[in-house]
Amino acid sequence: MTIKEYYAPTHVYFGKGAEDKAGEVLKKEGATKVLVHFGTGSVKKSGLLDRVEENIKAAGIDFVELGGVVPNPRVSLVREGIELYKSEGCDYILSVGGGSVLDSAKAIGYGVYGGGDVWDFYCGKRVPEGIAPIGCILTLSATGSEMSDSSVITNDETDPIYKRGCNNDLGRIRFSLLNPELTYTVSKYQTASGSVDIMMHTLERFFHSGHTLELTDKLSFALLKEVIRWTPVALEKPDDYEARANLMWCGSLSHNGLMAAGNATLGDWACHQIEHELSAEYDVAHGAGLSAIWGSWARYVLDVDRDRFAKLGEGVFGESDPIRAIEKFEAFFKSIDMPTDIKGLGLDFDEAACKNAALGVTFQDARTLGDFKVLNTEDICNIYMMASGLK
Amino acid sequence: MTIKEYYAPTHVYFGKGAEDKAGEVLKKEGATKVLVHFGTGSVKKSGLLDRVEENIKAAGIDFVELGGVVPNPRVSLVREGIELYKSEGCDYILSVGGGSVLDSAKAIGYGVYGGGDVWDFYCGKRVPEGIAPIGCILTLSATGSEMSDSSVITNDETDPIYKRGCNNDLGRIRFSLLNPELTYTVSKYQTASGSVDIMMHTLERFFHSGHTLELTDKLSFALLKEVIRWTPVALEKPDDYEARANLMWCGSLSHNGLMAAGNATLGDWACHQIEHELSAEYDVAHGAGLSAIWGSWARYVLDVDRDRFAKLGEGVFGESDPIRAIEKFEAFFKSIDMPTDIKGLGLDFDEAACKNAALGVTFQDARTLGDFKVLNTEDICNIYMMASGLK
Repeated sequence: MTIKEYYAPTHVYFGKGAEDKAGEVLKKEGATKVLVHFGTGSVKKSGLLDRVEENIKAAGIDFVELGGVVPNPRVSLVREGIELYKSEGCDYILSVGGGSVLDSAKAIGYGVYGGGDVWDFYCGKRVPEGIAPIGCILTLSATGSEMSDSSVITNDETDPIYKRGCNNDLGRIRFSLLNPELTYTVSKYQTASGSVDIMMHTLERFFHSGHTLELTDKLSFALLKEVIRWTPVALEKPDDYEARANLMWCGSLSHNGLMAAGNATLGDWACHQIEHELSAEYDVAHGAGLSAIWGSWARYVLDVDRDRFAKLGEGVFGESDPIRAIEKFEAFFKSIDMPTDIKGLGLDFDEAACKNAALGVTFQDARTLGDFKVLNTEDICNIYMMASGLK
Repeated sequence: MTIKEYYAPTHVYFGKGAEDKAGEVLKKEGATKVLVHFGTGSVKKSGLLDRVEENIKAAGIDFVELGGVVPNPRVSLVREGIELYKSEGCDYILSVGGGSVLDSAKAIGYGVYGGGDVWDFYCGKRVPEGIAPIGCILTLSATGSEMSDSSVITNDETDPIYKRGCNNDLGRIRFSLLNPELTYTVSKYQTASGSVDIMMHTLERFFHSGHTLELTDKLSFALLKEVIRWTPVALEKPDDYEARANLMWCGSLSHNGLMAAGNATLGDWACHQIEHELSAEYDVAHGAGLSAIWGSWARYVLDVDRDRFAKLGEGVFGESDPIRAIEKFEAFFKSIDMPTDIKGLGLDFDEAACKNAALGVTFQDARTLGDFKVLNTEDICNIYMMASGLK
């Protein structure tokens, strides 16, 4: 049996006003000049950025700003961040925003430490050996990047565009300030898309080959049920603290490794790769893309282990028929206005588009995907076809 | 609202053969000479110690041994360990054993770093500002010390004997090697006692004042149900890997902070203090002591919030009547041969003994205990009386 690691060292501060800890924690961490990294303006408009910067200043810490991160964050801005961090003599990065900002911050951290071309760490040419210290103030419950080892970056300098991840324990950031109130202003669509992403981080781990630790299955069911319970509440009443708090903590625990602890492998993860191809090329919201793909993936791989689907359905919905279990998940996605096919993303895929996307996912037939079921280019094309109503 | 911290940085290696990682991990950690700390012989007899020491040697790391830790570990041996660590020029401690050995190792770590009288850190005179680096190979699922911030030491140099804890994030050790197979040889009594301890670490957190995060409640129910499911299996078949693996991971998660995450407080913890008085003075197994006390505590505090007991009962047993929920827990304890009163510990308490013990717990009426319900000396005496069949 493989020895499984569980390592989630991020120091979490959770609750109303958590962001006001920024200066204190950064000082304790020994930061003297901080690169404050953020997105395209909402943290400015809301006044959050000003408050945070005041807080840092009051702790006697200098800072420099780099905004402009977009969803599916770009390597071009990462390069800018690396230069800025170095030229300004920064010694810490503070990400203020959602997962895209944080993933961009991690990439800057790798680049600062590792020198050379930062994209090397994302296309698999080099493995990071260090990272600049990073903390975050989270404004979106979704990617789990605030406790995970993951960072996903899009290379906008190539044609076609590539979206690639770097998973490394160094990417588990030093601290995360989690105030659920900061997610009150997240739109309905982004809230729902975030919830799908949270669920998928657990579902990807749930479907794996080999030995399963029962406790991990049961924790997974508990987490999925809370996402399903609280997402409609947050959609109905965006400033419901209980809903936002539960979704936020679900997001962190779903992707910090807990939901694969003691299992034989880290999970399947084919859906994530199949989706990345869509969101890189068409800039769809990651969660919406996952929701559009998952049901087709599930039906395609179902026969590998129908009992696994039955157990999931029973644990989450009290529904032990595997097909009806898949339908329950899709019904939930629909109920929060998430798509369950590619058309629902506003995309019209024909067979050629499916083939092309499948070849993109497998790097032109150079790799397979998945662990619950290993998928080749043809399998993936079939899944795209199913999700496009062509099969 | 208070900002709640969650911090569980221990790097866990879980699975069969995890102990064989010792040399590799210690080397990565930069250890050159390790104090190998263990108990009264079982790890010698089983051959585990020899294997581990061979493994460390093969990694080019020197070591020195200190055995002799007893349940309710003694400060006298801790002092010996501090001297040995210093005189031998050690730079790492490796605990090989259960929670007592690890708690002793943590005390040595505090003493080595902090100088002066190590007991200061346990009687509250000083707060630790550092600790020697520590790793563990766990042989008992119970205390959760392998991921927790806690260490409990008994002062055998005083009369009466004191048992005191030191809770500090510095006590979260660097790495834990968790091989469930190493718990196959744990006796039925210690297995059952360990399971009670695991359950109590979650129950103590479940009963608290103020705000509760729903997800945390649901994770708590999942964990408690798995302990209840797997303990009888481990008792019936001591080498059942699934049972031992689930109990081991339940033990770690029950006490690493997860089961209080997002709640307003860290929990009640009165039962633990009420029990410590028993195990310090009469050397009873900690879990058995907790089992003997909990039902009386529960009935005594029930009216503070009957709904909380109802929710617990419903979540764990599908039993929403609060009294019957308490009875369900007691019935489970009995089913695994754990006592549900003080007589079951082999002790015969009269009223004077109860009063004396209560005064011991409150440091002669100098403190109160508890958070779900704050208890004074009289309350605690009443609980001892109830647990002794005198009320």
